[in-house]
Amino acid sequence: MSLKLADVIKGIEPVSQKWRQKARRYLNNLAIPQGSLGELLGIAEQLAAIKQNLKPSVARKVVVTMAGDHGVVNEGVSAFPQEVTPQMVANFVAGGAAINVLAEVAGAKVVVVDMGVAAELDELVKKGSIISCKVGFGTDNMAQGPAMTREQAVQSLEAGIKIAGKLVEEGVELLATGDMGIGNTTPSSAILAAFSGRAAEEVTGRGTGIGDEGLKHKARVIEKALEVNRPNTNDPVDVLAKVGGFEIGGIAGLILGAAYYKIPVVVDGFISSAGALLAKELVPASLDYMIGAHRSMEAGHNAMLDQLGLKPLLDLNLRLGEGTGAALAMNIVESAAQVIIKMLTFEDAGVTPDVPRG
Amino acid sequence: MSLKLADVIKGIEPVSQKWRQKARRYLNNLAIPQGSLGELLGIAEQLAAIKQNLKPSVARKVVVTMAGDHGVVNEGVSAFPQEVTPQMVANFVAGGAAINVLAEVAGAKVVVVDMGVAAELDELVKKGSIISCKVGFGTDNMAQGPAMTREQAVQSLEAGIKIAGKLVEEGVELLATGDMGIGNTTPSSAILAAFSGRAAEEVTGRGTGIGDEGLKHKARVIEKALEVNRPNTNDPVDVLAKVGGFEIGGIAGLILGAAYYKIPVVVDGFISSAGALLAKELVPASLDYMIGAHRSMEAGHNAMLDQLGLKPLLDLNLRLGEGTGAALAMNIVESAAQVIIKMLTFEDAGVTPDVPRG
Repeated sequence: MSLKLADVIKGIEPVSQKWRQKARRYLNNLAIPQGSLGELLGIAEQLAAIKQNLKPSVARKVVVTMAGDHGVVNEGVSAFPQEVTPQMVANFVAGGAAINVLAEVAGAKVVVVDMGVAAELDELVKKGSIISCKVGFGTDNMAQGPAMTREQAVQSLEAGIKIAGKLVEEGVELLATGDMGIGNTTPSSAILAAFSGRAAEEVTGRGTGIGDEGLKHKARVIEKALEVNRPNTNDPVDVLAKVGGFEIGGIAGLILGAAYYKIPVVVDGFISSAGALLAKELVPASLDYMIGAHRSMEAGHNAMLDQLGLKPLLDLNLRLGEGTGAALAMNIVESAAQVIIKMLTFEDAGVTPDVPRG
Repeated sequence: MSLKLADVIKGIEPVSQKWRQKARRYLNNLAIPQGSLGELLGIAEQLAAIKQNLKPSVARKVVVTMAGDHGVVNEGVSAFPQEVTPQMVANFVAGGAAINVLAEVAGAKVVVVDMGVAAELDELVKKGSIISCKVGFGTDNMAQGPAMTREQAVQSLEAGIKIAGKLVEEGVELLATGDMGIGNTTPSSAILAAFSGRAAEEVTGRGTGIGDEGLKHKARVIEKALEVNRPNTNDPVDVLAKVGGFEIGGIAGLILGAAYYKIPVVVDGFISSAGALLAKELVPASLDYMIGAHRSMEAGHNAMLDQLGLKPLLDLNLRLGEGTGAALAMNIVESAAQVIIKMLTFEDAGVTPDVPRG
């Protein structure tokens, strides 16, 4: 249960090509014109290959919503004040947030993790309403120095891995990522700019809703953070430490954990995909276990998805985070699983077998 | 229960603008950055306005899969033989088809209707496994004359209306359309070409999977059908009669019925949207009740959606029909309904109220 980052990095295996082929052959015999279920077939194949099983159940689902705060909000990069982070955590616990509602439709449980909220959340932890993996009370202001120490970066990654391990032990079959943290599009854009080499202004968006002036200012803050910190992109832990966030590290760790334990993980929007990018930079094979949930409205998300090499399932102009896009996508993933688990082949169904297949 | 087409056409009302505004005001107070749930908010608003209720339940869902055959298959327009239509109807009844599996995930019942399959299906009707509204044993070959008589066109529309009425009486809160019929992309393309004025080759696709030569031939057959029949686009019933299909008429009728009874209806892919186009041409206000499910891979579907003025929820490269895309989209529609039914407002949630709202 207390796996070290280095062991997980070594332990992640690419998804079995043999199982991919086996699943593809099986799917090609379903009683439909070949390929006519589009992306569902690709997801079904991926699920079967990950689980090495032609009946890849994803019935037990959990969305892990990781919360953290960001010192960089002192630069005025967000439309919302920092107090909203703990208030929204309380809203998740009360069950009135978008993620609660959408996860319920998907049949998923929501697990809320305090990775580094800048407020005392002991009451909620004691009640068992949230899990505490608190690395700190918000990161430091990355425009003036590293967001966190290297040790904290490793700690946040290992916390995510631990959560994945705990959930897998409890029988979870499909994970999804989510985030809450006022200001967290700023480190996400910085991570993307660092790895892609794109200019800050190219990958900076409006987050929760800043105006034109605010947007320019935010890009300048990100530029400054990159100049001040000069993160080493050959060392993803350094990037996380210098311009990341506790919940972003947690998300990256959760994804690495999912890959380590061979569990598919649905990656939510912009912030989650910054975590996914860190995971992929640490272990390229972790990408095999990821399912892109949606194309967010946040301006940098297209570039992020390109950088990741992930084609998302949905495009619904969402820009909320929390794991909401991932929860919606879980319905599609469940549908893909049921296609391979339950559908009849041409032969089973007694449908004229001499029909064209390609 | 035996409503006449003319009465339904007269009886359909546009969705209440007052309720749209009321729903929008309510949604703008949810505890999220304004607009950040993207398309879900538009759907939630539409549902609330259709049902004139800020808690618009769509819990009871039915996908109506309408089956019919097409005389035009004699021209060699399909990759599959006509016997596949009744075989797939049997597969729907057995529960092994894609629509069964995907509807189950969405919590929807599948109702299979024989609108005009070219085979005796009495056994299935007697067992109560399918509903018979059989207008004929397949349409006539539209490349040589009208696909059906005007009376049959009206009969197929009224059958769809009757099914909608029956389901509404049973308490259904969300309908979806689906189709099965070897050869039915051909009349669908013809209907689109007629109303849009586009050339046949522009709106003709590969259906279940014909090759390049087959595609050219199919476009020529559609062109010929339009020349032979000269459908009057000011008279949608004439278009249906001359170049339509029994199940396409049934789908158009189902949509008109949904609009008449003020029930939202999710429109599946290419064939369903040909039915939707007939419904819209008959009663433009019926569009207010439609939710576009997905952008199909079938070549003409983009043009069809443009002609309809419908922006679909999903884009998953599906091209199966049966109602599969609509069943998948029902998960998103349910999610949108739950957003307006269950989410807390900023005030309810105790989240800092002096945050920016736009």
